[in-house]
Parts: sequence; structure tokens; C-alpha cells
Amino acid sequence: MLINGVQTDQVSALDRGIQYGDGLFETIAIMDGHLSLWERHLQRLHHGCDRLGITAPDSAELLAEAKTVIKNHQKGVLKIIVTRGIGGRGYRPPVDMQTNRVVYYSPWPDYPEACWEKGILIRICSTCLGINPTLAQLKHLNRLEQVLARSEWVDSATFEGLMLDSDKRVIEGTMSNLFLIKDDMFITPDLNRCGVAGIMRGLIIELATTLNIPVIIKDVSLDDLKAADAMFISNSLIGMLPVRELLGVSYSLDLLPSILVKTVDDYISGRY
Amino acid sequence: MLINGVQTDQVSALDRGIQYGDGLFETIAIMDGHLSLWERHLQRLHHGCDRLGITAPDSAELLAEAKTVIKNHQKGVLKIIVTRGIGGRGYRPPVDMQTNRVVYYSPWPDYPEACWEKGILIRICSTCLGINPTLAQLKHLNRLEQVLARSEWVDSATFEGLMLDSDKRVIEGTMSNLFLIKDDMFITPDLNRCGVAGIMRGLIIELATTLNIPVIIKDVSLDDLKAADAMFISNSLIGMLPVRELLGVSYSLDLLPSILVKTVDDYISGRY
Repeated sequence: MLINGVQTDQVSALDRGIQYGDGLFETIAIMDGHLSLWERHLQRLHHGCDRLGITAPDSAELLAEAKTVIKNHQKGVLKIIVTRGIGGRGYRPPVDMQTNRVVYYSPWPDYPEACWEKGILIRICSTCLGINPTLAQLKHLNRLEQVLARSEWVDSATFEGLMLDSDKRVIEGTMSNLFLIKDDMFITPDLNRCGVAGIMRGLIIELATTLNIPVIIKDVSLDDLKAADAMFISNSLIGMLPVRELLGVSYSLDLLPSILVKTVDDYISGRY
Repeated sequence: MLINGVQTDQVSALDRGIQYGDGLFETIAIMDGHLSLWERHLQRLHHGCDRLGITAPDSAELLAEAKTVIKNHQKGVLKIIVTRGIGGRGYRPPVDMQTNRVVYYSPWPDYPEACWEKGILIRICSTCLGINPTLAQLKHLNRLEQVLARSEWVDSATFEGLMLDSDKRVIEGTMSNLFLIKDDMFITPDLNRCGVAGIMRGLIIELATTLNIPVIIKDVSLDDLKAADAMFISNSLIGMLPVRELLGVSYSLDLLPSILVKTVDDYISGRY
């Protein structure tokens, strides 16, 4: 682990990351020793810093640190945490903060291969997502909603839980975005009120459009889920993962366009 | 600063406090070398731990650490941060987590005495509070909403900003709770959807009831603010602080019951 380029895993307890969750993070796939979709992750991180008024870390420096951290790893996960820095009594951020950056490697999660072949079982979480347009789409460090939602089940058969906003719209999974397939169109929830704008979600929307698959971004209800022909979740590590079952309803596994699945895989593994 | 009883200010970057804001905090007034309203703060901390499924720190141990930290200080602020601990890949909390506790002293904030004599100017923030009953009332570490709301103004003439929930109900200040006085009754916003259940708010509700001042807990609109005869904010450090002006409307400073103000002061200073 590197913190501001120094090999350590210690941060000050006065860092606003721990005090208030005042920061952002990225979770990046490492495939064949390559940082998957690096430019997109960097761009989202910068955009998040802009939105929160945090001084963005230097891109070249961050890339150098990322490469140092992954240099002995062919496959795994790189996590970057950026916080506003140390200090300020109270919520108001002082001027001239020194952004802190944490860069570290984790092993690849052991998702069973059968998930992709047979699809996954998912559920609906009762913990909701608060509506806040100011924070919507950001991958910020305030993640208690996800922690509590992910605490709602322990059985390993259930891969993911979907979260609704406080007005009962379906938004996303605890660690993934959601796509429905209905009449050969993709539908994915609008994230203007809450939710995380996933890098993989963005890539899928772009690629689908290129492949002439219509993508509709709109509010999604529980009824829309029941009416869908197929469903998949996405994130930077899993790519696209088809849903087999939700709330006792079975979904088709054959409707994910194979050319799209292959192109996404190629992007993740750096062949594009 | 003591972390788990050891004199250090360093925590692991893998602590779930920094990773997800997965924890709670307390801000306690130190008056005449005494921990103000200690039992109430401890009780809220334990309640918060119960709600989040965090193993609560040992009360006696925490008190001993707090006393160690404040032993050379007559006046100031004690902050306690409790996190779920280190570890777990992903949001799901592992079983058998070791709670981490951070206990430290800060100087007393330099609030001008004139605030109490002449009342304060407050404003309305545009950053809203997301509605989430699962997190409502807790003093948890997900405080980006407050950070962004408190970033909305820089003039020192404005003491506090009120935050509305995503449905435009008035909830609280960025760092305080709100009371309206209308027809000799106290009105304070319902915190079942969002907001922090302040220790001082709880004390004021109890004492007011004892003094036969009716207290109504209900949803509060912007119109209710305009219609109020007087208004005050509360927290563990400021006690009760009268509002002089909001949105161009002036409020009476003479309607705060002096017996209540005095009793609250006595509680803060440990004379009760």
C-alpha cells in the first residue's frame, strides 16, 4: 500500500476521510498486469473531485503509484481512495487542504465461474438509498447504506441485492449497476437522484449504442423488473453478469448480446 | 489522542471508518474539567452501535480513556469516534470485527459571546438531507451532506445553515438541531426520516416537558419557519442559541424561557 507515495498503511485519525467520509474511491480491475479502463476511472475520480471541491491528485503521479503497487500482480484489484485531507474543526473544509491518496492492491474476488454460465440469484434490500442530487453518481466514501444493505443477507446463494430509493424507485445493486432487457432494448435506472455512475455502466451504454441496441435511461419500478425479459448487473470487476432469478421470477439468460459481452471482456482485459 | 487506549493518531487505511464511513461519533463538551452529559452521550453511542451492528466499546474503558485525554484541560471538546474495525473486502461486514475507538481533545470553539446576547443569523442550505429511516437519528460517520452544506457560505456573519430533506421538510442545522417557538409551544422537526438526534435536543425536550412547556415533534415546512415567533438551535457545545434572523425575517430573542436556558447551562456545566 502506498499513501501519498510512501509505503505505509497508516493515516491520521484527523483525516476527513475517517471523520466525515469526505472523499472518493475507485475500484479497478487488474488483468494480465494491466490497469483495466484506467483513463475512465481517472476521469471519474477527477469529476468527483470537481464536484466535491477536492484538489484532484496529479494524474501522472497517481498512475506511477498504481503501477508500483501492481507490479508483481497479474490479476487482482487496485483500490484508490482520495480524501480531502487532514483538518478543519467542524464540517467546513479549510482552504488549502492537502489531498491524501491511498493506493493498494487486493486479490481478485473468488466469484464462481458458474455465475456467468447459469446466472445469479439476486434479492431486494430493505435498506434504501437517500435521494440527494448533490451526491448522486459520485463514488464517494459515504457508504453506510451499502454496508447495511449488504448486511441483510448471509446466504452465499444470493449474489447481489438491489436497492430502492426512498420513493421506491429501483436504482442499483449494493456494488453494481442494473440493466433490464425488454423487447430487445436496454433499460437502466436514472441516477440523477442517487446511485453510483459505474464505469462499466457507462461503457456498456456507449458500446450498446454503437451496436444499435437502444438504451433507455429512466425511472425503474419493481413492476418494471417483473416485466423484464432479462436482467444483468455490471461493475468494473464482474463486467456483465446475467440475473437468473429475482423474487421468484426467472429471467432468460440468452438475451445478452454475445458481441457486447465479448467487447466488454476485451475492454476489461485491455485488448481494446 | 488515544486509539484503543494507545497514544497515537494513526489508524489503518483499511479501517472501515475511512473505507465506508462505517462508524459513529460523539462530540462532548468539557466544562470545568468535567465531561458534560457523559451518560447521555454514552447511551447514544451504544444505541448507535446496536442499530449498526457494531460491538459497542466497553463503557468503563471508554470513560477511563476520556478522563486520561482531558486530564489537563478545564474547557474544550472531547471527540469519540467508533468504527466497526478493520477489514472485509466489500461492503459486507465480516463477523468478529474488532471495534476501533479514537478519543481526543480539541480546544473550545471561539463562538462570540454576542451570539447568545444578540442572536444569530442563519440561512437555508441548498444541499439536502437524503431520507433514510435506517440511518435516521444516528450520529454516524457519513457526513458529506453536512460538509457540502457547510461549504455553501463563507461569511462569518452567518452562524448556521438549515438543511431540508429531499421532500423540502426542514430538518436541522448542519451541526445543530432546530426548535421553533410558536404560541408559547416548542416545535422541533420529526427525525424519523433523517437528521441527528442531538443529545441537547433530547435534554431540552425533557426539561421543557418538566417545565410544562408543550413540545410538538412534527414535520416542519419553510412556511412554519416564517410563522414562528422565535427560533433557537441547540447542540452539546452551544446549548441553546437564539436565532435573530432568517431569510430577512427577524425573530424575537425574548421568548426563550430563562429558567430553561439556565437549567440547560447547569446541565452542561455539570451542576446537575
